[in-house]
Amino acid sequence: MIPTFRLTLEYDGSEFAGWQSQAQGERTVQATLVSALSEIAGAEVRVTGAGRTDAGVHAEGQVAAAELETRLDAETLLRALNARLPRDLAVVACAQARAGFDPRREAVGKRYRYGVWNGRVASPVRRRRFHHVPGALDLAALRLGAAPLCGRHDFTSFQGAGSAVTDRVRSLRCVEVAGEARGEIFFTFEGDGFLRHMVRNVVGTLLEVGLGRRPPGWVAEVLAARDRTRAGPTAPARGLTLVRVDY
Amino acid sequence: MIPTFRLTLEYDGSEFAGWQSQAQGERTVQATLVSALSEIAGAEVRVTGAGRTDAGVHAEGQVAAAELETRLDAETLLRALNARLPRDLAVVACAQARAGFDPRREAVGKRYRYGVWNGRVASPVRRRRFHHVPGALDLAALRLGAAPLCGRHDFTSFQGAGSAVTDRVRSLRCVEVAGEARGEIFFTFEGDGFLRHMVRNVVGTLLEVGLGRRPPGWVAEVLAARDRTRAGPTAPARGLTLVRVDY
Repeated sequence: MIPTFRLTLEYDGSEFAGWQSQAQGERTVQATLVSALSEIAGAEVRVTGAGRTDAGVHAEGQVAAAELETRLDAETLLRALNARLPRDLAVVACAQARAGFDPRREAVGKRYRYGVWNGRVASPVRRRRFHHVPGALDLAALRLGAAPLCGRHDFTSFQGAGSAVTDRVRSLRCVEVAGEARGEIFFTFEGDGFLRHMVRNVVGTLLEVGLGRRPPGWVAEVLAARDRTRAGPTAPARGLTLVRVDY
Repeated sequence: MIPTFRLTLEYDGSEFAGWQSQAQGERTVQATLVSALSEIAGAEVRVTGAGRTDAGVHAEGQVAAAELETRLDAETLLRALNARLPRDLAVVACAQARAGFDPRREAVGKRYRYGVWNGRVASPVRRRRFHHVPGALDLAALRLGAAPLCGRHDFTSFQGAGSAVTDRVRSLRCVEVAGEARGEIFFTFEGDGFLRHMVRNVVGTLLEVGLGRRPPGWVAEVLAARDRTRAGPTAPARGLTLVRVDY
């Protein structure tokens, strides 16, 4: 039987066209990983991921499954892979998994973090991992706005365009806003699943509240409307990191 | 009289050949700043910095002085400059200074931070600002090793090659080691002045102790020897950030 491995991946998404691309020849995380694994196995290796991160989105704990004919143990495979991967992609953990392990269907939860740089001036050292918001943010308002999102809701209002998903009910275990105005602010989202662009649309909506353009109660109204034209703008990909996938 | 401005600069040093270059045509922080200022002033502007950061070294609070014939006030100049600077260099503060302000001679202190990523595997998201040390570091040993460096000493043993400086006595107000083994570790250095490569040589020496290759007491021996062949290897530039210059 062909062994299956569970790979935990870290990547800087800045120079990847996302996890999976539609067009041939794009530099994607999946294609880069397939290429390194196939070189090791001497045959085309199939790789599936826990979620398809967008272009520019980072990961500290993306999970992938790879089936490959190899006599290497998990630790040796990890080292062989990292020796072949570019500097913006690494396997941080590797373990043998049971046959048929499906990282997407078997995931019971995910954690995302979104970073905002709330300085007057764009920050060169933070430019790859933070969204720059120059106007002063009101953290108390951000927290008030975020509170009604926790729990089990229909998140239709925050789903990105072009998604075919029809069941848009998800459970958010927590939305945390940490940091300080005029500094680094981190939004942390933990839930059982996320719709396409959901985190970025929620952050874009919360920022309208943080900037005082909308009252905190507006976020609950947007949620209740189940209408994606009601939400704020989609926050840029560069601020988003897939921190962890739970099984 | 030509007005003098004091500029506080932030930069990601990864793609700069340092603050100041010897060779023509290198992409340096100083040359990039001179070019933007000269465009604004319509004439060649002279810029001096508080210190010459090496290629790959970052800054969150480098200080520069610029003399330029302009009717712009400091706030307008800041915005005009940032509109012309590349994304890896920004002016985070701008104020008018008295004529003759010399950012190097008038500095009374500097703070540097050095970041080490102590994970088993190189970290893609940290690769531009951390030095990767895969072996487990002993934080207690690092702190013991660092303690005798505080105070007023002759730091000849930690001076980089090729420096013409003959007075190598400097005062380190503090050396702090924060973080956790198998995670991010930050070394913070505050002092009245630093020799060429001093922070990187001290970090390289301390890491020998943290890895258990040398006992903590070795650092004091290296310091006392006043012999630069005795120190550990120079830690790479990418981990180093000039945080602040005090006046």
